[in-house]
Amino acid sequence: MEGTPKRPSNQELLLQEILQEALELPLSGEVANYIPALASVNPNQCGIAVANLDGEVHMAGDANVPFSIQSVSKVYGLTMAMLRMGDDLWRRVHMEPSGQAFNSIVQLEWEHGIPRNPFINAGAIVVADTLVSHYSSSKSAFTSFVRNLADNQDIYVNQGIFQSEKSHGNRNAALAYLMKSFGNIEAEVEDTLDHYFFQCSIDMSCADVARSLSFLANRGVQPHSGEQIVTRRDAHRINAILQTSGMYDQSGEFAFEVGLPAKSGVGGGIVAIVPNYGVICAWSPRLNQYGNSCLGMYMITRLAEKLGLSVY
Amino acid sequence: MEGTPKRPSNQELLLQEILQEALELPLSGEVANYIPALASVNPNQCGIAVANLDGEVHMAGDANVPFSIQSVSKVYGLTMAMLRMGDDLWRRVHMEPSGQAFNSIVQLEWEHGIPRNPFINAGAIVVADTLVSHYSSSKSAFTSFVRNLADNQDIYVNQGIFQSEKSHGNRNAALAYLMKSFGNIEAEVEDTLDHYFFQCSIDMSCADVARSLSFLANRGVQPHSGEQIVTRRDAHRINAILQTSGMYDQSGEFAFEVGLPAKSGVGGGIVAIVPNYGVICAWSPRLNQYGNSCLGMYMITRLAEKLGLSVY
Amino acid sequence: MEGTPKRPSNQELLLQEILQEALELPLSGEVANYIPALASVNPNQCGIAVANLDGEVHMAGDANVPFSIQSVSKVYGLTMAMLRMGDDLWRRVHMEPSGQAFNSIVQLEWEHGIPRNPFINAGAIVVADTLVSHYSSSKSAFTSFVRNLADNQDIYVNQGIFQSEKSHGNRNAALAYLMKSFGNIEAEVEDTLDHYFFQCSIDMSCADVARSLSFLANRGVQPHSGEQIVTRRDAHRINAILQTSGMYDQSGEFAFEVGLPAKSGVGGGIVAIVPNYGVICAWSPRLNQYGNSCLGMYMITRLAEKLGLSVY
Amino acid sequence: MEGTPKRPSNQELLLQEILQEALELPLSGEVANYIPALASVNPNQCGIAVANLDGEVHMAGDANVPFSIQSVSKVYGLTMAMLRMGDDLWRRVHMEPSGQAFNSIVQLEWEHGIPRNPFINAGAIVVADTLVSHYSSSKSAFTSFVRNLADNQDIYVNQGIFQSEKSHGNRNAALAYLMKSFGNIEAEVEDTLDHYFFQCSIDMSCADVARSLSFLANRGVQPHSGEQIVTRRDAHRINAILQTSGMYDQSGEFAFEVGLPAKSGVGGGIVAIVPNYGVICAWSPRLNQYGNSCLGMYMITRLAEKLGLSVY
Repeated sequence: MEGTPKRPSNQELLLQEILQEALELPLSGEVANYIPALASVNPNQCGIAVANLDGEVHMAGDANVPFSIQSVSKVYGLTMAMLRMGDDLWRRVHMEPSGQAFNSIVQLEWEHGIPRNPFINAGAIVVADTLVSHYSSSKSAFTSFVRNLADNQDIYVNQGIFQSEKSHGNRNAALAYLMKSFGNIEAEVEDTLDHYFFQCSIDMSCADVARSLSFLANRGVQPHSGEQIVTRRDAHRINAILQTSGMYDQSGEFAFEVGLPAKSGVGGGIVAIVPNYGVICAWSPRLNQYGNSCLGMYMITRLAEKLGLSVY
Repeated sequence: MEGTPKRPSNQELLLQEILQEALELPLSGEVANYIPALASVNPNQCGIAVANLDGEVHMAGDANVPFSIQSVSKVYGLTMAMLRMGDDLWRRVHMEPSGQAFNSIVQLEWEHGIPRNPFINAGAIVVADTLVSHYSSSKSAFTSFVRNLADNQDIYVNQGIFQSEKSHGNRNAALAYLMKSFGNIEAEVEDTLDHYFFQCSIDMSCADVARSLSFLANRGVQPHSGEQIVTRRDAHRINAILQTSGMYDQSGEFAFEVGLPAKSGVGGGIVAIVPNYGVICAWSPRLNQYGNSCLGMYMITRLAEKLGLSVY
Repeated sequence: MEGTPKRPSNQELLLQEILQEALELPLSGEVANYIPALASVNPNQCGIAVANLDGEVHMAGDANVPFSIQSVSKVYGLTMAMLRMGDDLWRRVHMEPSGQAFNSIVQLEWEHGIPRNPFINAGAIVVADTLVSHYSSSKSAFTSFVRNLADNQDIYVNQGIFQSEKSHGNRNAALAYLMKSFGNIEAEVEDTLDHYFFQCSIDMSCADVARSLSFLANRGVQPHSGEQIVTRRDAHRINAILQTSGMYDQSGEFAFEVGLPAKSGVGGGIVAIVPNYGVICAWSPRLNQYGNSCLGMYMITRLAEKLGLSVY
Repeated sequence: MEGTPKRPSNQELLLQEILQEALELPLSGEVANYIPALASVNPNQCGIAVANLDGEVHMAGDANVPFSIQSVSKVYGLTMAMLRMGDDLWRRVHMEPSGQAFNSIVQLEWEHGIPRNPFINAGAIVVADTLVSHYSSSKSAFTSFVRNLADNQDIYVNQGIFQSEKSHGNRNAALAYLMKSFGNIEAEVEDTLDHYFFQCSIDMSCADVARSLSFLANRGVQPHSGEQIVTRRDAHRINAILQTSGMYDQSGEFAFEVGLPAKSGVGGGIVAIVPNYGVICAWSPRLNQYGNSCLGMYMITRLAEKLGLSVY
């Protein structure tokens, strides 16, 4: 009825309850500070969104506030590269868990420039390299891809973050040059890093992220559009890599405690896939020692418990 | 009707078809040869069994032939230790994927004697140490536990394998002494290794293994007895560790291609858990470069494809 | 007497004898081929020179043919940096043997961007960085320094090698960016690498190299000019680092078999310091598995044996 | 003349002066505490002895007090093994610096059970293994060898230290079992470790140590007896390994600052070889972060400076 505010659904009530619990926890964790532009975010923001397979998105808190997706972008990059390269991709990046801190250069040396998986920085740089090589303009292709998935044309790169990433990217440059010395970077290192930092610097909201990745919970089909984004098999495969490698060096613990494929970013976002149910995205900037959002972990863990969402 | 052989079920027909495909593949892989007793097995044996949640076990090939379970024993050991120690266990062994060859000593050094997970050798030795410390006779406790799970009192240790393991166990002794130097082995190293080699040397058939671990596919309840072996939460957690770490340095690839929690052993056995469906155990002695059974991998992959069994 | 050729000295006869022995050895080793410009050198060239403390230089074979000094340049760079920075240098590079292949990135990661010593690539890049930061034109300062030491104004960079190094320098770029990420590179990485590749690409003859480093055998004083290049103490210190770290991962063996401080380069040159006696430089392009000249090793070893030159 | 005390020589006056300087330094360092028996030593003891090539031994402070030689024993073990095995020894242990903390297991794994040099624990265990295999009673052979070198029959193992070492030797057991898994330990691990801990537990004074190793400064000939202990070449070689690897992860710095081959032990002893001059042994129990005696380092450094003793 006109003029009447929509009543919150049961799921929204649950999300609000969990958000409230999270906000009452003692503060812990620190905002990412390796680049100034990230460090200046308001640390008290907190939101959660769930995209169901009927196309609805339920939300609580700051679920519509855009944040820096950072490593969550690796999921989009991987999807694009799998579409473009097919199984050739897996000759340039493996799909094994890394068992190391998220940006360690040691394993890359041992394994001759082939990164362990596409969700460690080295692997995502290789993925970025394939996009730079395959697209005339990989950055605009990336933005278009994400906008279409999220059904939202108002998704942009954050220029402040982008420039900041570029000027603090020495470690990623080291990874890229090391891989180039092994022959596993095809484009110019500068161009590959430019794309990589660009995709990390995209701003999206919890609602955007949850909606955009719904196809992973739905056998490859985007619920709101009916479009087959990837094959059922590739949706399963992306989920598998998320499960073993999506949460930095806390991936095993997250599988153990929550049991869902997930990806986090140092902007404080975490997205978790619930096959045949939907996609959860939680966001809050303070990070634990592994680089995962403290409140994001809490909220997703609680929601999974309450709804019994483990894949096991 | 008296005298009439039971007709094979549809599932048995499917298992036989897949077994037949496997047997027609070009031979590849080598039988484990690090101990003479394992190297002498007939390499051409091949079997598969599926235990469904109704308590039925379907079989094909050598599914009733006992084989050396080797690292599959780590699942039983972990279950016993979780029951005995609760969450205290996780202060002595982590649950992160290892990202290394299955018996590497390097990571153990870096992480001060705390193994990455209970399915690498170091982790299973810590688990064995907890059993030695908590049971007056850990070896007979282990055998009883497995016999009850499998509902089969005719499960025994293979003395030839056991002695052979003990006399070729220098690397595992190195792991154990290194952990003891970090204070993470409580019993005498000799006693802990004695238990560890004992449990690796148990012989079981595919049918035994599949039936015995059915509780993992059934929220902790053993279907044929109705007994709650572990909590639903712990069943999920064991599956999570199987998924990220059960298949040596091919764990990521197995999650990627098959999407099921699984554990393999160098005796050629592989067990895969299908939550809410059942447990598959395949066996054939020839191993690929990662130590996983070539035909075992093939048969489980095919069955999962044909029945759409991925958790994702 | 006018018109009469100078008779070879006893030392020259000895050098010719050793050279002859070397040339009669079965061929072994390969010319460095990581850059095309190095790979095209005539592999059969072979020379040796000894600069005595009286200022005389004795020679045999191709001792006057300029070759690419490559890592021998690290000795000049280190000397310049010690002169410029004093003991501050040792906060940015250590003086411990590396125990790794000469360009490994692993140890650099473990030790937070501080290279183990100035003779591994990472350490020499830090040294280059100090020169770039301290000189308005570090490349011409380097050339001048070497020319004066060698008392030869006809020493030049090889432009073909220089360009080739720059276009194949991805691994060194990785080292430099990694150190920059730890804050241990002050200048722009590009400028530091430009200097580093420049100094590696200088061409000098055995005679040039032997004469130029004579001060290291003479308590810091250049014999032919009487100039005090470095303090006695610093001459000792440079010799110490040469002894423990100058011959890549064959440094221990060279100390063991020969007992002299020495530095080799992948251009095939090796220079050895004999305190209070003189400096030997041998050159031949074929390298052994460690990157050291096969015939250079042979000739210096033989000469040291015959003359009893070990410091021990 | 009867009743008249011998006047101190100039060298003794110098030693006393340096000792006095050392005793006036602010206290620093900690006594080794990994075994209780070592931790109970009086930390304020301090002595220095110099054995000259004329057979005289000059002393100051507690130079006649026996202390636990610990890793200094590795020099005797190596000498015995070289005498027994000749160059075959070098197939089982290398002579390259290790570039790692003194007991790291990582490099041993990388290099397939061949230790980098005989002065890291793993290398000394291999040396011990050769002695156990070659002697019917390696422990008494060791004691006899040392007594003869020192010309002192009153040298004994310290039983308290020996038992303490054996019961705290888990890390060394890990090294030994790891090497055995690679086939590089021939005897039973228990027997090899028994010998290794025995030789570490010998008590000797500064005067004993200095006199016993005089042959290393004298081309293999023991000055007081005229006996050729090893060839001139092997004396040089032992000195070379001492120079590159004798002072744990401070070996490079010691070569850099002092310029003498040397070996230290966690009992607080340090012995330095001065070719063609003599042998210095200093002792004081407090250790720096590398496991080297603080005052021992100081006294040897000062003496070398004052007498200009560097090999360079």
